[in-house]
Amino acid sequence: MSIRIGILGYGNLGRGVECAISQNEDMELAAVFTRRDPKKLSILTTTAAVCSVSEVQEWKDKIDVMIICGGSATDLPKQTPEYARYFNVIDSFDTHAKIPEHFANVDAAAKESGHVAIISVGWDPGMFSLNRMYANAILPEGSDYTFWGKGVSQGHSDAIRRIPGVKDGKQYTIPVEAALEAVRNGENPELSTREKHTRECFVVLEEGADPTQVEQTIKTMPNYFADYDTTVHFISEEELQEKHSGIPHGGFVLRSGKTGWNREHSHLIEYRLKLDSNPEFTSSVLVAYARAASRLAREGQNGAKTVFDIAPAYLSAKSGEELRKSML
Amino acid sequence: MSIRIGILGYGNLGRGVECAISQNEDMELAAVFTRRDPKKLSILTTTAAVCSVSEVQEWKDKIDVMIICGGSATDLPKQTPEYARYFNVIDSFDTHAKIPEHFANVDAAAKESGHVAIISVGWDPGMFSLNRMYANAILPEGSDYTFWGKGVSQGHSDAIRRIPGVKDGKQYTIPVEAALEAVRNGENPELSTREKHTRECFVVLEEGADPTQVEQTIKTMPNYFADYDTTVHFISEEELQEKHSGIPHGGFVLRSGKTGWNREHSHLIEYRLKLDSNPEFTSSVLVAYARAASRLAREGQNGAKTVFDIAPAYLSAKSGEELRKSML
Repeated sequence: MSIRIGILGYGNLGRGVECAISQNEDMELAAVFTRRDPKKLSILTTTAAVCSVSEVQEWKDKIDVMIICGGSATDLPKQTPEYARYFNVIDSFDTHAKIPEHFANVDAAAKESGHVAIISVGWDPGMFSLNRMYANAILPEGSDYTFWGKGVSQGHSDAIRRIPGVKDGKQYTIPVEAALEAVRNGENPELSTREKHTRECFVVLEEGADPTQVEQTIKTMPNYFADYDTTVHFISEEELQEKHSGIPHGGFVLRSGKTGWNREHSHLIEYRLKLDSNPEFTSSVLVAYARAASRLAREGQNGAKTVFDIAPAYLSAKSGEELRKSML
Repeated sequence: MSIRIGILGYGNLGRGVECAISQNEDMELAAVFTRRDPKKLSILTTTAAVCSVSEVQEWKDKIDVMIICGGSATDLPKQTPEYARYFNVIDSFDTHAKIPEHFANVDAAAKESGHVAIISVGWDPGMFSLNRMYANAILPEGSDYTFWGKGVSQGHSDAIRRIPGVKDGKQYTIPVEAALEAVRNGENPELSTREKHTRECFVVLEEGADPTQVEQTIKTMPNYFADYDTTVHFISEEELQEKHSGIPHGGFVLRSGKTGWNREHSHLIEYRLKLDSNPEFTSSVLVAYARAASRLAREGQNGAKTVFDIAPAYLSAKSGEELRKSML
């Protein structure tokens, strides 16, 4: 029997989940729940229902796992504990500093209702976290490095767009190649913010806006740009549409460590992602963990979990026997 | 209370395990078991016992996990099922084709005795397997690539040393950079054996041996070298000692896959290891999984397991709370 998935929220992430489900034969999309008028929402999967979030409780017994595709700032802190009362749930909560609080809230709700809830699933937090954790367990003495990019930072692009005189803009975070190489060479560098990443901005000006003024405002913006070497390019609206409408991202997690009685041997563990579509990759991770959630629930487990708590085999449609034969 | 570890077999791997234990505060080396005369074996850990394998049963209640450091060809197929009768065990069995058979034998023994046995732990099989599995679960449509090196292949070095006229030799397996780049660029290349790796040999000749003859014998050796572009360097015994006495290794696991309703987006997942010491890194992985074995046994689990069956958090000395706070 297929694993019946619900999607709550149909933005980039929800659409990505829909696409990912179509790549997994043991899953089917049962319904998409939206805060908008369901009649006005058209989805890609012809066999799935489109419903208002107000109807969600009627689907209690018709959905095995609800994937909650809201934002981390205001949606997920409310939604995940709320829907964990009715469903096994998964989210991609990514406000690192607030994870302990979110975990506690979701855990309480999921334990009370007897559901499984997996939080902070995606690539960072998610696959990057897993790689940090495995690498630290294997090489207890060493240094960790995370680099992001090349990719679009939504937060930094939004910051640019709020500047007076800016019509539209997109910001790329780019890891500094020399810093990456120093880490790979086992130099264990101590890297400042500026030494790790550069920022590149593509900006469309409003008519009559002063480019020098805008560039200065961007480059000196505290937190967002002031601590980085930032490049600003002014381009036309057409060029922005044509060349910068994607949402690529990715990055690197590295651990450089020592072994040997006198710590005489160096080792490097590197994990890299290069993603054409940040939301579609995140969605693909969510869907793999939805499989795990459904299995764990069938085993009678409950409460909040993270990627650290889930044995890898739960993510795969293959049996243990097949996995040992083909992938070990 | 510390996790009490036993080491069975004190070659490169056993010594590596001893070093790795010294990097983990929650563990202690209880005893090393050897087939040699224990009186003639000196180890690094002053607090640990050195015993004959014949005494191993006396340690039944004094060791939480026995790490079996034998070879895959003849030792482990016998040793792991045998010692699983008395201990929780871990091995690094790496004959990929025979894993299903080994798993079945170990599983039967471990279930009968109520112990946990984790097999095929290391980097390949081990961390490479994990990365293949995670990447396949996340990107169900795509291609897998594994490259090994740059590193010393023991099997190929042995093959060189068996050639008449060769006094000593070392072989490096080297991934072809152009092939790696094609994979990273999402070209999904179909790669022949020759296109993936080259082989570089450093050979010390016996006095009077014919270099042309030896080089020809190496380059045309079936299975080992004939399908590869092979380079042979003749060097002095001193140079071999000085520059080629290490046991470095490593490699790359890549998965290139597509997402999107029309598979319009490409993604690359890359995992890389660069290791100064192949046995010490393998040992470090073994020791992290020994922690998992001890915990699983305390939970009352038993039977054979692989890296696919073990939730990542079991490998870490940190609590779930600490992990969520610091690594998620």
